[in-house]
Amino acid sequence: MEKKPVKIVTIGGGSSYTPELMEGFIKRYDELPIKEIWLVDIEDGKEKLEIVGAMAQRMWDASPYDVKVHLTLDRREALPGADFVTTQFRVGLLNARVKDERIPFSYGMLGQETNGAGGIFKAFRTIPVILSIVEDMKELCPDAWLINFTNPSGMVTEAVMKYGKWDKVIGLCNVPVGAMMKEPETIGKTLDQLTYKFAGLNHFHWHKVFDEHGNEVTQQIIDAMYEGKDGGIPANIHDIPFFKEQLDTMQMIPCGYHRYYYRQEEMLKHGLEEYNTIGTRAQQVKQTEEELFELYKNPDLDHKPEQLAKRGGAHYSDAACETIASIYANKNTHIVVTTRNNGAVPDLPVEAAVEVSSFIGATGARAIAFGPLQPAERGWLQCMKNMEWCVEEAAVTGDYGKALQAFILNPQIPSGATAKRVLDELLLAHKKYLPQFADKIAQLEAEGVTIKDDVARELTEKGL
Amino acid sequence: MEKKPVKIVTIGGGSSYTPELMEGFIKRYDELPIKEIWLVDIEDGKEKLEIVGAMAQRMWDASPYDVKVHLTLDRREALPGADFVTTQFRVGLLNARVKDERIPFSYGMLGQETNGAGGIFKAFRTIPVILSIVEDMKELCPDAWLINFTNPSGMVTEAVMKYGKWDKVIGLCNVPVGAMMKEPETIGKTLDQLTYKFAGLNHFHWHKVFDEHGNEVTQQIIDAMYEGKDGGIPANIHDIPFFKEQLDTMQMIPCGYHRYYYRQEEMLKHGLEEYNTIGTRAQQVKQTEEELFELYKNPDLDHKPEQLAKRGGAHYSDAACETIASIYANKNTHIVVTTRNNGAVPDLPVEAAVEVSSFIGATGARAIAFGPLQPAERGWLQCMKNMEWCVEEAAVTGDYGKALQAFILNPQIPSGATAKRVLDELLLAHKKYLPQFADKIAQLEAEGVTIKDDVARELTEKGL
Amino acid sequence: MEKKPVKIVTIGGGSSYTPELMEGFIKRYDELPIKEIWLVDIEDGKEKLEIVGAMAQRMWDASPYDVKVHLTLDRREALPGADFVTTQFRVGLLNARVKDERIPFSYGMLGQETNGAGGIFKAFRTIPVILSIVEDMKELCPDAWLINFTNPSGMVTEAVMKYGKWDKVIGLCNVPVGAMMKEPETIGKTLDQLTYKFAGLNHFHWHKVFDEHGNEVTQQIIDAMYEGKDGGIPANIHDIPFFKEQLDTMQMIPCGYHRYYYRQEEMLKHGLEEYNTIGTRAQQVKQTEEELFELYKNPDLDHKPEQLAKRGGAHYSDAACETIASIYANKNTHIVVTTRNNGAVPDLPVEAAVEVSSFIGATGARAIAFGPLQPAERGWLQCMKNMEWCVEEAAVTGDYGKALQAFILNPQIPSGATAKRVLDELLLAHKKYLPQFADKIAQLEAEGVTIKDDVARELTEKGL
Amino acid sequence: MEKKPVKIVTIGGGSSYTPELMEGFIKRYDELPIKEIWLVDIEDGKEKLEIVGAMAQRMWDASPYDVKVHLTLDRREALPGADFVTTQFRVGLLNARVKDERIPFSYGMLGQETNGAGGIFKAFRTIPVILSIVEDMKELCPDAWLINFTNPSGMVTEAVMKYGKWDKVIGLCNVPVGAMMKEPETIGKTLDQLTYKFAGLNHFHWHKVFDEHGNEVTQQIIDAMYEGKDGGIPANIHDIPFFKEQLDTMQMIPCGYHRYYYRQEEMLKHGLEEYNTIGTRAQQVKQTEEELFELYKNPDLDHKPEQLAKRGGAHYSDAACETIASIYANKNTHIVVTTRNNGAVPDLPVEAAVEVSSFIGATGARAIAFGPLQPAERGWLQCMKNMEWCVEEAAVTGDYGKALQAFILNPQIPSGATAKRVLDELLLAHKKYLPQFADKIAQLEAEGVTIKDDVARELTEKGL
Repeated sequence: MEKKPVKIVTIGGGSSYTPELMEGFIKRYDELPIKEIWLVDIEDGKEKLEIVGAMAQRMWDASPYDVKVHLTLDRREALPGADFVTTQFRVGLLNARVKDERIPFSYGMLGQETNGAGGIFKAFRTIPVILSIVEDMKELCPDAWLINFTNPSGMVTEAVMKYGKWDKVIGLCNVPVGAMMKEPETIGKTLDQLTYKFAGLNHFHWHKVFDEHGNEVTQQIIDAMYEGKDGGIPANIHDIPFFKEQLDTMQMIPCGYHRYYYRQEEMLKHGLEEYNTIGTRAQQVKQTEEELFELYKNPDLDHKPEQLAKRGGAHYSDAACETIASIYANKNTHIVVTTRNNGAVPDLPVEAAVEVSSFIGATGARAIAFGPLQPAERGWLQCMKNMEWCVEEAAVTGDYGKALQAFILNPQIPSGATAKRVLDELLLAHKKYLPQFADKIAQLEAEGVTIKDDVARELTEKGL
Repeated sequence: MEKKPVKIVTIGGGSSYTPELMEGFIKRYDELPIKEIWLVDIEDGKEKLEIVGAMAQRMWDASPYDVKVHLTLDRREALPGADFVTTQFRVGLLNARVKDERIPFSYGMLGQETNGAGGIFKAFRTIPVILSIVEDMKELCPDAWLINFTNPSGMVTEAVMKYGKWDKVIGLCNVPVGAMMKEPETIGKTLDQLTYKFAGLNHFHWHKVFDEHGNEVTQQIIDAMYEGKDGGIPANIHDIPFFKEQLDTMQMIPCGYHRYYYRQEEMLKHGLEEYNTIGTRAQQVKQTEEELFELYKNPDLDHKPEQLAKRGGAHYSDAACETIASIYANKNTHIVVTTRNNGAVPDLPVEAAVEVSSFIGATGARAIAFGPLQPAERGWLQCMKNMEWCVEEAAVTGDYGKALQAFILNPQIPSGATAKRVLDELLLAHKKYLPQFADKIAQLEAEGVTIKDDVARELTEKGL
Repeated sequence: MEKKPVKIVTIGGGSSYTPELMEGFIKRYDELPIKEIWLVDIEDGKEKLEIVGAMAQRMWDASPYDVKVHLTLDRREALPGADFVTTQFRVGLLNARVKDERIPFSYGMLGQETNGAGGIFKAFRTIPVILSIVEDMKELCPDAWLINFTNPSGMVTEAVMKYGKWDKVIGLCNVPVGAMMKEPETIGKTLDQLTYKFAGLNHFHWHKVFDEHGNEVTQQIIDAMYEGKDGGIPANIHDIPFFKEQLDTMQMIPCGYHRYYYRQEEMLKHGLEEYNTIGTRAQQVKQTEEELFELYKNPDLDHKPEQLAKRGGAHYSDAACETIASIYANKNTHIVVTTRNNGAVPDLPVEAAVEVSSFIGATGARAIAFGPLQPAERGWLQCMKNMEWCVEEAAVTGDYGKALQAFILNPQIPSGATAKRVLDELLLAHKKYLPQFADKIAQLEAEGVTIKDDVARELTEKGL
Repeated sequence: MEKKPVKIVTIGGGSSYTPELMEGFIKRYDELPIKEIWLVDIEDGKEKLEIVGAMAQRMWDASPYDVKVHLTLDRREALPGADFVTTQFRVGLLNARVKDERIPFSYGMLGQETNGAGGIFKAFRTIPVILSIVEDMKELCPDAWLINFTNPSGMVTEAVMKYGKWDKVIGLCNVPVGAMMKEPETIGKTLDQLTYKFAGLNHFHWHKVFDEHGNEVTQQIIDAMYEGKDGGIPANIHDIPFFKEQLDTMQMIPCGYHRYYYRQEEMLKHGLEEYNTIGTRAQQVKQTEEELFELYKNPDLDHKPEQLAKRGGAHYSDAACETIASIYANKNTHIVVTTRNNGAVPDLPVEAAVEVSSFIGATGARAIAFGPLQPAERGWLQCMKNMEWCVEEAAVTGDYGKALQAFILNPQIPSGATAKRVLDELLLAHKKYLPQFADKIAQLEAEGVTIKDDVARELTEKGL
């Protein structure tokens, strides 16, 4: 029985990641016969969409396959009949992320894309938008899969299930891919010899590794990494080592983002240094992005440039393509994704979104039961999941008290008057993208609350 | 890196199933390079062991592979260096099973190999033996996998984990294989187009089915089966249909053994008819076995005979070979096995043994999280699992009160004086194999309790 | 600060229990200053209402208190301003209960008011009515407490919370009261010396007992009961002893209704004997009721007559009065009631209704955390609670498949064609009171299903 | 039946709290007829023991009751026949607490008796000692109750149950008493009109309040407290208000110690101010203690002096006396205690120690089922309980990795190199009291790790 050719819609199609996505699709064309790709973006992203759209078409034209790349600013034009909708949009663009970073840092607090105050506000801006996309999907492509790689990917994916009541969704992350690419060679193995078991949340998971005889080699990898072997840290995470005594005790390998929680002091210090010197991560990324788009403009470029790998999200799009191909071709590939728990991580409720080793096939992700964690990891996990629930509920309701609860519970935010000030300033700074908080923002404005002078000036100077 | 050739030890090697096991190994030699096979049995099974052992060697000799089949009555001679130990022994042989059936039936109660009073007593006899095997394995082959297909497979496997503290164990069952072989064609599909999701306990699981687009087709299969399509009922289960209204409501397909619970009246009636006429299942199997061993004696027979398929456990051994090959070659095959829950069936504790869809590889079974059941199935499941725990605890401790609790909770046993009588008679009947209950049995004897006259006479007449 | 005098509304006020209720209120007038009592009944119960209403007024007139007893056939007239609404109605009166008993017994199956097929159908008739009462209460007396003692009290109370979304409800049962009144003297103690810990479901709970030094005396009471001491079995439960080995193992005392589960054989036999001779329990109760109402007609009778104690529900009303007084006066009395679990019985979900030792005060029932049960009791409990959920869902939706699932799971009903026949006949027999099942009943009628001839004739002869 | 007169043994009897304990016992003599009291202390506390012992005897002599106060430095002399053993000892005396505070503060981190690094080390010192007391009790007074008010009371009590396998233990805290004494008047009520529902952990619980009509008044109390009414903050907690938006959202009242978590910034700042000026809390308490002991020396003083109330633990001893009297007289008094969860706080495992509203009687604490918490509180609770488990396991095993895990998870400790340094310095500072960590301490010494110079000098100067 033949399957129909595939229609892909990519929301946030003007992203610099799109060429990697195209490359992934081209590589897998035999098992995933794509008919058409729609890149969707908003008015503010029109220029980028056109640049990257032309580049994408060139990539397909240079391939043996006849695929048409459509560009549109109206997602309702693109969605009808879609088989897969991928989301990689960024509400407020990188400028919003700069604020997520610089406002907390201006008060000596971590500002990071998916962690701390920054991550919370990215969720506040993104969740209402993804929910409106889901509403359009219910109407225009009710059988499509939603493959999300918009950050904070865990919370965004969970909101789709919990508030959007949409189950055909998978959240993606490139971090596990990185670990699986680098770790095997630290112990002289290849990936296909090893069995990986991941469990946790997006940007907050741990894993164990076993060799071809079924013996656990987690400790060997830990030992190897402390002897200087590269364990696959994402480019956007500053390389502070974990305490070896901690890893020896937990007998699991944390993901790179755990550094924010296990080496809070050093990560904050490093972030503040960048804040005060070369600029925060978003500012660095803006630079990289500009360079990338300069490259993309080159009408002779018809393949993914090397430089893209420097972007933090390398392999993200590749993971997405593999996920889509595995669903389409029912491949039962092992991929680490965010999906409904269903008991896989028994320390969390069955309905929670978790990021776990899964086999991906026609029915989506089949999460593998990991079993219970030890107390320390369980404590972290339960803290973070409940924090995420506070964030999502605040994002959906615009309830200030719940936002405050999320801030207070978040381990990156020392609770107190400064934290509340940061919350208030971020509400003001993102006013345009936070209609659900309109009343509270109006109240803050009426009370004369403003963004701290020097930060406001600086943001203005930098054109944010 | 090369893997060393494999040593297999089969406890209960004199079983009539052994040729199927050999066939399975021969078929998979390329991915599972076996070096030697040890068939172990006890003194009482010596003749059968020699017959089936010679037959097994002939099968290998007729194959392109050079494999030596060793026979021994001393498992400690066989175990050293084993990679896989498979268990297919039957404490008390088929005669004990005849008693498990005829004594309950003599009181109008179900007697069945894995269900009701019979299943409980098979567990009572088997669990102490499997635990002593595990003790030997700890000493002689501490890295081996134990692949159990001795019934009641779920409880025996759980006892290995819970009381034997041995985690490298997988319990097997042929029932899911049967369903997956027959159902696809009822809706005009092939197995590789479908995704199966099984969850529950051994001989007490349900499944859902999805097509290559990820759409659920459980209802279509149910409909097809009620239009007369064969859904793969094991040969040893009388074919009483489920109520269609029930299946339409549960939206799952029960396993064949659920007939004992969903059509209790008819299954009991049918069992009693056989008891009063052609003999119970064990008696029928004895006949089949005798015929099989006559065949096996033929020095020209060097392949599995057709007749073996009539035995209830068809595919059991094939499932075992596939499981062993998947572990050895880290194939991540989807097989339905009994393994530690770890959250896969969140309605049961994480440490329970469950029978679920799993991917089998070098680390053993990776159970897939099924998610919570609906109330009716959850009620059944929790009842049965707790009943199993009572049985296992009684099997290990020899505590009569716990045995009585298991009898009272078991849904096949109407509680009351007759049930207690059946419990007492079975204790007396199996005295030789129940050392843990010695004190209680002595007390019953002292009180003059005996097996009902006509049953005792009948068992004697039949040479049991 | 003074509390306002109390208005009580009793739905099913024409019940023979009403005088006990009045006696309970009179006894507690000092702590529960009642202003007015409304007895509500339906047209069919008008005569009884008038008899018992006059009797109730005579009881108050003979007391030192000035309380007016109002009678009405319109509950919406009675409800406004109510502080406590008690429910003791019986949909279809005792005639319906006779059918709940005689139809199952005609097929050799248990028919009982709260257990087996009879209990399920009592729930089917009652739950829609209690939910309509709750709707009226939301409108007319939104601050009132609902004190339910309509059977099956556990399921009815749970339906009020789960489907009625009404939390101010407490379900009552007289069985624990009976145990606490009789057991202490079996070991030479008084109730106030002992601590009782109950947990389970309505008519399906167990308890443990401790002396004034905190030492457990459960075993002593068990021993004493087997030496012939009266342990407080309700009048309506046939006195078959539990197996002592079972109680010695569980180290808990089951409630009387557990006989239906622990001595199923004998309880069924006894029920069938009564069915074939003196008539089922409802028929006996009808006789008792007629005698009671003859007594109540006596214009000189102004106190509860001795004969009422012979009715099965003795102490029910007294428990209700004590509960109401404890709420009103915030007494924190220990009473065993059906209330929201909240973790008290951790083997069941937090939202389930459970029957547990509670302290009753102004906020209602504060359930005491009992902790986990042993496997056998846990298996029973989880089976029964899930069965109850199937019943309630079928009662609310009229879904035949769910009703069938409840029948199949119920341990009193051997599953199969006969069970399905009993289900169908009970649907037909109670047609008038089961509007939610109208479609299925019409279908059965169209298919020509009828109540078995001799039963139908018998019911007609007996004027049912 | 008469109960025998009571023998009390108080470990840490030389504490300044002892007179409050005596006062509590004298006040309750009628319901708790004490025969003898044994005050036990260690050689280092001999002088204090004699002072306070004499004072205690004078208090009894001034009462109408004939009670003998015995003093001993050998607890094995005191324990035989004890009915209640109360524990109020302080391993390393106040000097150790000074180090728990000053070493973390020297690195800008919170040092507090039960929170952060200080609380963890108090647990490290105390748990081995309480476990050795439990071993003596098993031998010398196996029927006695252990009433613990040694801090960190929650972890110490849990360790007694979990590692000591001793169930007759209750942990006490004065914080709930303080709230219940002050809050009612903020809304014009008396305590006996209100129903309090507490749940959480020691020094980390929340409560809800209801009036005599069962209506929740939590919000009214919150509102009243923000209008300046005193809500009963313990004397040792700096009075930083919670954010009202937070309390309005959670609809619960946190305990005073939640300030360390909800207003981390301000609490740390305040602690550092005291550290740099008047000295940390332990230093202040040392001063208070010295004054108290001067008073106690007065041979004319025969009642508890006013000044004792200034000590943070006011009402602690009174709660202990009430608990003991409630057990002895089976009073079923509502007291908030640390006890086995059993489901009362269903967001935590059944075996965890929790601090909850309980009714105290002859069987000890009967915890009231509180039901599930909202996400924010649940996240905090699960984080803290798992952190406590890490601490307890490290305390029992002396495993450095686990200690590090506890430090990293603890919300008061910013993870990183400084945290690890603080851990190491505290190990060195408390070497005498941490035999379980001897190997690690030796290793640190060998590596030349030392306490920071200025802190070491300061501690020496202050005679610590």
